[in-house]
Amino acid sequence: MKISPLQKARYEYEPKLPGMLRNGISEISVKEGEPTQSVADQEKIQALFPNTYGKNEITFEKGENTAETKKRKVGVILSGGQAPGGHNVISGLYDALKASNPENELIGFKNGPSGLIEDDFIVFTDDYIDEYRNTGGFDIIGSGRTKLETPEQFAIAAEVCKKHGIDAIVIIGGDDSNTNAAVLAEYFAANNSGVQVIGCPKTIDGDLKNEDIECSFGFDTATKTYSELIGNIERDANSAKKYWHFIKVMGRSASHVALECALETQPNICLISEEVAAKKMSLSQIADYIADSVEKRAANGENFGVAIIPEGVVEFVPEFSALIAEINELLAGEKAEAFNALPTWKEKYEFIENGLSKEAMDVFKILPETIQQQLFLERDPHGNVQVSLIESEKLFSALVADKLKERKEKGTYTGKFNPLHHFFGYEGRCAFPSNFDADYCYSLGYNAAMLIQYGFNGYLSKISNLSKPAEEWVAGGMPITKMMNIERRHGEDKPVIRKALVELDGKPFKFFEDNRDKWAVETAFVFPGAIQYYGPSEVCDLTTRTLALEKE
Amino acid sequence: MKISPLQKARYEYEPKLPGMLRNGISEISVKEGEPTQSVADQEKIQALFPNTYGKNEITFEKGENTAETKKRKVGVILSGGQAPGGHNVISGLYDALKASNPENELIGFKNGPSGLIEDDFIVFTDDYIDEYRNTGGFDIIGSGRTKLETPEQFAIAAEVCKKHGIDAIVIIGGDDSNTNAAVLAEYFAANNSGVQVIGCPKTIDGDLKNEDIECSFGFDTATKTYSELIGNIERDANSAKKYWHFIKVMGRSASHVALECALETQPNICLISEEVAAKKMSLSQIADYIADSVEKRAANGENFGVAIIPEGVVEFVPEFSALIAEINELLAGEKAEAFNALPTWKEKYEFIENGLSKEAMDVFKILPETIQQQLFLERDPHGNVQVSLIESEKLFSALVADKLKERKEKGTYTGKFNPLHHFFGYEGRCAFPSNFDADYCYSLGYNAAMLIQYGFNGYLSKISNLSKPAEEWVAGGMPITKMMNIERRHGEDKPVIRKALVELDGKPFKFFEDNRDKWAVETAFVFPGAIQYYGPSEVCDLTTRTLALEKE
Repeated sequence: MKISPLQKARYEYEPKLPGMLRNGISEISVKEGEPTQSVADQEKIQALFPNTYGKNEITFEKGENTAETKKRKVGVILSGGQAPGGHNVISGLYDALKASNPENELIGFKNGPSGLIEDDFIVFTDDYIDEYRNTGGFDIIGSGRTKLETPEQFAIAAEVCKKHGIDAIVIIGGDDSNTNAAVLAEYFAANNSGVQVIGCPKTIDGDLKNEDIECSFGFDTATKTYSELIGNIERDANSAKKYWHFIKVMGRSASHVALECALETQPNICLISEEVAAKKMSLSQIADYIADSVEKRAANGENFGVAIIPEGVVEFVPEFSALIAEINELLAGEKAEAFNALPTWKEKYEFIENGLSKEAMDVFKILPETIQQQLFLERDPHGNVQVSLIESEKLFSALVADKLKERKEKGTYTGKFNPLHHFFGYEGRCAFPSNFDADYCYSLGYNAAMLIQYGFNGYLSKISNLSKPAEEWVAGGMPITKMMNIERRHGEDKPVIRKALVELDGKPFKFFEDNRDKWAVETAFVFPGAIQYYGPSEVCDLTTRTLALEKE
Repeated sequence: MKISPLQKARYEYEPKLPGMLRNGISEISVKEGEPTQSVADQEKIQALFPNTYGKNEITFEKGENTAETKKRKVGVILSGGQAPGGHNVISGLYDALKASNPENELIGFKNGPSGLIEDDFIVFTDDYIDEYRNTGGFDIIGSGRTKLETPEQFAIAAEVCKKHGIDAIVIIGGDDSNTNAAVLAEYFAANNSGVQVIGCPKTIDGDLKNEDIECSFGFDTATKTYSELIGNIERDANSAKKYWHFIKVMGRSASHVALECALETQPNICLISEEVAAKKMSLSQIADYIADSVEKRAANGENFGVAIIPEGVVEFVPEFSALIAEINELLAGEKAEAFNALPTWKEKYEFIENGLSKEAMDVFKILPETIQQQLFLERDPHGNVQVSLIESEKLFSALVADKLKERKEKGTYTGKFNPLHHFFGYEGRCAFPSNFDADYCYSLGYNAAMLIQYGFNGYLSKISNLSKPAEEWVAGGMPITKMMNIERRHGEDKPVIRKALVELDGKPFKFFEDNRDKWAVETAFVFPGAIQYYGPSEVCDLTTRTLALEKE
């Protein structure tokens, strides 16, 4: 078997473009919008982007295409973690370029931004592209995490572009990659290289969104895949009636994935990192919050449940971050050697007890021993605790077990608590894109080609009105600088695209907040099932609950 | 939201019956086949089942229905682990009973076989059944693992049946539950209770199959769900190009699930427990086998891959089983106290070193410390090692890392090895049944009702010719005793249904064996994607590769 039946069938799928892009290239004209300003720190951003700042927002509409039809060569880069639909961005870009001028060429730099620096690429052909249409993954050219951000890298990039006669680069990436796309665009403009840079908003985390970008691609497919699995586990929990499932989902800095999955599946518990931070919740408070649900459900004879835990949540617990900071300090430099020399965990524990503040020790003491040891024994090359290795799903189930033990002694809880653990991340990043992501991504790529044809530089390909059918989507472009502000990174002021966290006064969280007390006690599980590509439209074409609530 | 769009849409699905059951109840007649013999130990089995042994195989065909049309009351039980399609067995049974006689009644015993003993049931109605059609899970009445096997339990069961006027019991379960169904059938026959027992073959493990039962229900959906996830991870591996994914899948005693997933997704490695046992492979040999693939792929610049590990594989490694036996012996009774009293792991290790044989110690030494500790510190109430807790996916990745370290020192290997771990089990047991499982299960239930109407007892509902379209399926019944042999269980001779292991000379394994060397080195991944319920038939209606190969 070379390819699966579904893959074969998906090759035939024709992604839907926004209505205004459906009339053929010759019937796409530009409608100029207003000049733009960055979301904050306008003067500083303008000073950093003198050539690309303040440009107009634009939309496309039906009308005579007035762009130059010269032959163009475009390079495309996949940057960072995989997201379903990347292949469709490339095929949309390819189709629009070829439709504009059959002599246009699209090349793909291999394995991420480093491909540009290393002058390592392939030239796309019909046959090559056809094997990747409507499929998941970034394997069409590979992805990578090299950051393009230094003047030296930019100079090499300019040279590579000149050498091959490249007119434009399309960077498919998240907030960091698109920030770097803007800086590269400014560099090209400042040096009159004539090379344009266009970004496309990618990330399953959903944290690249703002008043212009309604959602990043991949979020829809990834959350639908996780929700399928969570729903299946909920149904298993409700059938076997004997396990509490603690399910960690991807999302280091923002909890959009966890929240969307909760809206889709209505679990008993879903932690939201942004809320934990805002309310300065302690580990003990969080454990009590979960234990309350376990206890109330047990009182109803339901010794089972499902809790969703966002990957990064412990980093949002203030007392935990403080503990980590103290541990990093305690083991800095030579002190680590003294610690490492201690032969037994008992002696190490005494060292820790003497070294940490009382507040930090109070937090340390309630952790399960495996996590205590992990914090001290598995450190990165700089000697720092590797917070990302902490299995938060196991941490919280252990803390909840402790709480329940206390409650059992007090007599308030008489149930049984058998936790099981899951982590869903890699399962969703390369799924076949949902119809929504297939359409959205193809449109992003097609639209990027139009932005290139019309000579724009430093723009993000923008498709909006996404909660409506594709026919009503709006295609256009937005200067990336509009989304920027200044943030302190590694002790320096840097212009960056503001990362979108879950807004606690936003409609998706509010909806969750209004319902979660009921979900915590009742069994209100919803089972979304596997992503469907065929069949009734309400099953196949709806995007996320998050977007629906935001746009309602 | 009360139910998902897919669930709503699936309510409308009309499961396909075998052609011969499509003419209405009044047009279903019995064709008697040959008398049957048990697969082995015929005399002993016959002696144990004097009233139900040796009955004829039967098939249904189009013809005048000659069965009695008296009003009947039937009870149904879900036994053991969840499998997709259980709800359809019940709805098929319900629909056939109501079509036979609208006064017929179907009741469901709650939470497994214990519901029968505890006289705890619900009465099914149209409205109730309609909420569960074509959905996953066993939440319609719950499941449980209580075994019905003692004369005392049977006596209570007979009483409950008498009290409610129950004419027949349908038991939906795996090999053990159907074994017990046969024993109960014999009991009812011996006591002239007039109650019939019919079994239905359920298990995602796929190990309830034989020359009569082509596959158990749920295997198709569960393996398709795992294959979706494995394919997604393969695509991620091939995009990021930096991780080796070790994926454990369910299957304690047989590796059908692992093998089917491998046939669907073509990973680099798939261990088959039955082969490990047959070849008496050591942990070191298995680790070398995997490390060979890692090394060869690294030589091609591919420092990534996917390995499937069946859940129970370590129990099939002879030297490991011997080690476990020695540990259980070493800690039996009072000796555990001496061991537990030792304060440090170092002292415990010395105790172990003195207590184990050289052979056992050689195996113990190569284990990662976390697993060494787990073997000694986490024991069941009888003091035995809990083999099921061993995370085999982590065990093998650790052993492979050791092998690669050696090879690096020798200079034969220069790659990078970053393992990640997954376990898929609960994600697939309650998925919405595939069209195949929806059709198969509905047919099993419908067919069970016909077996009841015609007065059969101790039969398994049998639907065959499953690799063909449903129209061509063959419906009938097989005496459960035909599948039995005598096995030693807990020191006693017991009549049991022979568990089907992966046959190393069977076509599915042979196909795997013929291809795996290529798959181990090349990237031959196949991405099945999510189960589709609508769309092209070749995407939606095909059953497993295992069945296709077995029937080709």
